[in-house]
Amino acid sequence: MAGTEGAQSNKPAVTIYDVTLRDGQHAVDHQLDVDQIAHYAEVAKSAGIPIIEVGHGNGLGASSLHLGQARLDDLLMLETAREAAPDARLAAFLCPGMGTFTDIDGARSRGADILRIGVHATGADFCESYVDKALRAGLECHAVLMMSHMASTDELVANAALLSEYGCTTVGMMDSAGHYMPEEVGQRIAAMRQAIPGDLSFHAHNNLGLATANVLAAVDAGATVIDASSRGFGAGAGNAQLEVVCALMDRLGIYTGVSLDGCLQTSELAAAELIQTPPLVDAVSLVSGLAGVFSGFKRKVLAAASEYGVSPWDIFFELGRMQAIAGQEDLIPIAAKHLAAQPNTHTQPRRQYAIR
Amino acid sequence: MAGTEGAQSNKPAVTIYDVTLRDGQHAVDHQLDVDQIAHYAEVAKSAGIPIIEVGHGNGLGASSLHLGQARLDDLLMLETAREAAPDARLAAFLCPGMGTFTDIDGARSRGADILRIGVHATGADFCESYVDKALRAGLECHAVLMMSHMASTDELVANAALLSEYGCTTVGMMDSAGHYMPEEVGQRIAAMRQAIPGDLSFHAHNNLGLATANVLAAVDAGATVIDASSRGFGAGAGNAQLEVVCALMDRLGIYTGVSLDGCLQTSELAAAELIQTPPLVDAVSLVSGLAGVFSGFKRKVLAAASEYGVSPWDIFFELGRMQAIAGQEDLIPIAAKHLAAQPNTHTQPRRQYAIR
Repeated sequence: MAGTEGAQSNKPAVTIYDVTLRDGQHAVDHQLDVDQIAHYAEVAKSAGIPIIEVGHGNGLGASSLHLGQARLDDLLMLETAREAAPDARLAAFLCPGMGTFTDIDGARSRGADILRIGVHATGADFCESYVDKALRAGLECHAVLMMSHMASTDELVANAALLSEYGCTTVGMMDSAGHYMPEEVGQRIAAMRQAIPGDLSFHAHNNLGLATANVLAAVDAGATVIDASSRGFGAGAGNAQLEVVCALMDRLGIYTGVSLDGCLQTSELAAAELIQTPPLVDAVSLVSGLAGVFSGFKRKVLAAASEYGVSPWDIFFELGRMQAIAGQEDLIPIAAKHLAAQPNTHTQPRRQYAIR
Repeated sequence: MAGTEGAQSNKPAVTIYDVTLRDGQHAVDHQLDVDQIAHYAEVAKSAGIPIIEVGHGNGLGASSLHLGQARLDDLLMLETAREAAPDARLAAFLCPGMGTFTDIDGARSRGADILRIGVHATGADFCESYVDKALRAGLECHAVLMMSHMASTDELVANAALLSEYGCTTVGMMDSAGHYMPEEVGQRIAAMRQAIPGDLSFHAHNNLGLATANVLAAVDAGATVIDASSRGFGAGAGNAQLEVVCALMDRLGIYTGVSLDGCLQTSELAAAELIQTPPLVDAVSLVSGLAGVFSGFKRKVLAAASEYGVSPWDIFFELGRMQAIAGQEDLIPIAAKHLAAQPNTHTQPRRQYAIR
């Protein structure tokens, strides 16, 4: 297995970017505590995982009533991971507008090595000043295009190229709604590969049961940084499972530097200490993936369905038709009201077990 | 969506073969009761699911102390499903040696339309008399090659061709250990497609998080019958999720006759009424998939690991090296004892959360 004594010690062919302590926060309302963060960071570092992202699920400065108040302050989370894993490479996530320049300085001072900027797929031009700030603060800067299925391939390539020009050494795309099929991932990553000189990243969600396969397609098309979380701990149906990705990379002869034994330990640790409800493809996750809507809308959609007497599945499809993006939660009751005014859309009576 | 009014009414391009009430039994020690079977069969039939397999996880005649005693008699299970869904196509599963000719007659008399024979990948020549018996009893006869990754492509093709010659109208392969990657499935199904005149089936397990992707690869290579279960309810890491497969077939424009709304209902029903612990890719499932060992060994492996003080992960890899097949549970303590005599195989201390 890669990572054991005698294996090659050079740069991984695929760098595993561990989002367990950031995307996983979505699954526990951002309530990870000091012991959980410290223990996971320590074990992940021991496993050879090269980058560990830590923080509120929506990034620096996002803790709020609207998006969920985190148990811990952003900087305390970073400091905790840094103390538990002194020689780990730590990343902080930031969405421009939520996170500020002050947050960037704070993240640097508490131990972050990398700032990763997350922006809507067509929003690269918002980011130049943030990239510049991160670089001036002495951070390595990465960027990801979120909800990437909503942009054309040409738009993705243009936005990724811009982020690269600004100085990001890793640029990539997120499948925030878990909407892609493998060929679609391969085609987009291959196109981005032509335009991006540095590392190229991919972030999967498992709404269609295809997170692992989409990672394989991304790597095959030239992605060099793969987001993954232990046991898939992440928003909605979860992310690509880190331990599965590492094992399959090893099977394909692609060096990651992560030991099998080590990532099995992180998997068991995530199950025992972090996860409350295992991520899975339930009916709502499947529908939100099909509709291409951010699955973080789930609870508000269920509430609107109940209030207006319509199917949550129909609401997700309506939001998909409306091209709703993350942050536009105000469209949910509008969609529900619209559906309620069209009784012929309700083709079948709903059983009481339909949605929980 | 396929299956709604106005959709085409001809034979599905891909026939969904629902194993929820048979493979799912493995996940609940074969304890499904009359109400569970009746309700699920009724809702599955309403969803347009064309074939429903019912019975003990290991098939007719398998209920035993060794493999698990089912709550209900084989024939009562069939009769229950038949009464709940009078016009459904029902299948019974049988492994030659466990099930007898008397079981075949009984299954026919209680409402089975199809007998599906399951045999080790290289064991087709055991089956001729069973196929003959099923056909004489007035049943449609299908057959599947189990643990198919242990045979070469040429062996699989030869065994499948034999089953087809005997009179099976659907022949296929099971990925019983959840070991395949998509290209491997595609290559094998394509080779079988050349040799099999009738329907060609594929049955996935999700040990490597690839069940959905392997189904897509099988369909792309010519499979026309896809095994799936609602919510993946099945042995070990579970099967391909029926509702996900149906939704993706629809997205690809491949007609299944199953309505999206209907299979979302079966998914929610399985979660609410059948599943005790959701199927997921835990560390043991991942390792058994990597090692290519039947994941039904899990509990016996954990017991042997504890008794001999060795890692269950190492036992699974050792069983893989020994080419253990389903039914060879006696090899588990032998493998554990062998490992215990080689202390240098234990490269890392085990944490207490490592295996539960």
